[in-house]
Amino acid sequence: MLTILKIGGNVLNKPEILSQVLDDFAALPGMKALVHGGGRAASSLAKRLGIEARMHQGRRITDEAMLEVVTLAYCGLNQQLVAGLQARGCQAIGLSGADFDAIRAHKREGWEVDYGYAGDIDAVNGKRIFSLLEQGLIPVCSPITHDGSGQLLNTNADTIGATVAAELAKFTAVSLVYLFELPGLMEDPSDASTLITDLDQDSFLSYQQQGIIKDGMIPKLNNAFDALKAGVKQVVLCAPDHVRTLYGEGFVGTRVVMERVDAD
Amino acid sequence: MLTILKIGGNVLNKPEILSQVLDDFAALPGMKALVHGGGRAASSLAKRLGIEARMHQGRRITDEAMLEVVTLAYCGLNQQLVAGLQARGCQAIGLSGADFDAIRAHKREGWEVDYGYAGDIDAVNGKRIFSLLEQGLIPVCSPITHDGSGQLLNTNADTIGATVAAELAKFTAVSLVYLFELPGLMEDPSDASTLITDLDQDSFLSYQQQGIIKDGMIPKLNNAFDALKAGVKQVVLCAPDHVRTLYGEGFVGTRVVMERVDAD
Repeated sequence: MLTILKIGGNVLNKPEILSQVLDDFAALPGMKALVHGGGRAASSLAKRLGIEARMHQGRRITDEAMLEVVTLAYCGLNQQLVAGLQARGCQAIGLSGADFDAIRAHKREGWEVDYGYAGDIDAVNGKRIFSLLEQGLIPVCSPITHDGSGQLLNTNADTIGATVAAELAKFTAVSLVYLFELPGLMEDPSDASTLITDLDQDSFLSYQQQGIIKDGMIPKLNNAFDALKAGVKQVVLCAPDHVRTLYGEGFVGTRVVMERVDAD
Repeated sequence: MLTILKIGGNVLNKPEILSQVLDDFAALPGMKALVHGGGRAASSLAKRLGIEARMHQGRRITDEAMLEVVTLAYCGLNQQLVAGLQARGCQAIGLSGADFDAIRAHKREGWEVDYGYAGDIDAVNGKRIFSLLEQGLIPVCSPITHDGSGQLLNTNADTIGATVAAELAKFTAVSLVYLFELPGLMEDPSDASTLITDLDQDSFLSYQQQGIIKDGMIPKLNNAFDALKAGVKQVVLCAPDHVRTLYGEGFVGTRVVMERVDAD
C-alpha cells in the first residue's frame, strides 16, 4: 500500500501540529508520499514584499510577481519539510513538477478570468515517481509544476494529490489522505455526531442538493471521485490527529468510496 | 566522463548569458551535473524584505532571518534552473543537501565570528547521486544543506562543487568546471595574453607569494586541489562562452592540475 498524504495550511501553519503529523507520517507502514500546499506562506511572503494576493472564487490569480512569490515560498517550504522528514529517519526527496518532468502542466486559458501562471495538469511521470518509491525514497511534492518549455506554473495541491494518486494506482494500491480542519465531512460542523463516515457518489449528490457540501469542498471531492475512478483504493478526509490511526484502531474520519459496500 | 559545472552570480544574473550556458551545458556529452550559487539573488530578496545582508571576509553571515531568505532564494532558483534544463531536453532533478540526505553538514562553530546557519560539509551521499546519473538524470544542486536533525544550512557553492566532485570521483572520471568572469586565471586581468593556461601546486604557491592569486581565489583553488587529490581528473576555470569548447577545439581557460605533465 502507498499512502499519499496531502497537508495544507491547517497543518503547515501550526508548528506543533506539523511536527506531530510528520512523526505520525514517518511511522506509517509501507510506501509513502507527501503533497503540500502552502497558500498562506505564499500570501504572507507576498504581503512582506508588498505584492497584492488576488483570489477569484477561492483560486489564486498568479501574475508574474505572484509566480515568483509562490515559487520561492513553496520550494523553500518543500525543503524544510524534506529536512524535517530526514530528521525522522525518512529518506525524503523534494519534487516540483519540473524535477525529471514529474508533473507537466499547461497555463490555464479560456476561463472567464485570467488566472495567470496557474497550471492545469497534462501528465504525471508515474513510472519515475514509482521508481523512487521502489528505491525506498519518500517523495515530497510541492504545488509547482512546469510546462516543458521552461515556464514554472502554480497548481492546486489537492489536484496534485489526486492526479499523482490516480497515476500511481497503475503501479500499486494507493490510499489518498486529505488532512482536514474538522474530523471529516460533517452534516453540521458544530456537532461531532454528524460526521459522515462514508461518502459515496449518490450521497455526495444528495448532500450537494441539500447545500451541506458546497464551495471549495465540491472540487476537492470531485478530485477524490476522479481518483477513485482511476483505480485509487480509498480517499480519506480526517483531522491531523488521526494520521496515526489510519491503518489501526480508533480511526475517525470520512472515507470516500464509489459506492457503499452494502449498497446492493 | 562526468562534468560538474558550477555557475555563480556572473552567469545567474544575466539572462542571456545564462540561457547560452544552459544551451551549451545541455549539449555536453556524457554525464552532467550543475551546481549553482545565487548570493546576489539572496541579497536582492533580503533587501526587498528589509533584512540586512552581512558578510565577513567574503562569507555570508546567516542568521535566522537570512537563512529563511537564502532557503527561499536558492530553492526557488533551483527549480527555475531545472525547468530551464527540462526545456532543453535534459532530465534535470533539483537537489538540496536534505534531499535523500545528499549532503549532510554541521553548523560552523568555533570561528572568530558567529556565521550563524552556515554549514560545513560532513558527508556526500555519492552512491545515491551516482545512481541518479546512471538513470540518465542530471542533478542540479543548490547551496542548501542540512544537519540530519531538521536544520537547513547555507553552504558555499564552490565547496559543494568540489566536495561532490571528490565523492563522485569514486564512481567515475570527473571534470569540475568553475565558470568565471574572466577567461581564466590571469596574471594581469586587463591583459588577455597573461592567461594562466595550467596551474599546478608549485605555481599556485608562487602566484600567492607574488600576490597575483589572492582573497576569494585562494579558498576556491584550495577546494580545487583538494578535489584533485581526491581523484577528480581535472578542474577547469573558464568564461561562460567556453562551456561549448570544453571538450573540443579552441578551448580557452585555466586547467588546474596537481603537477604539469612536462614537470619531470
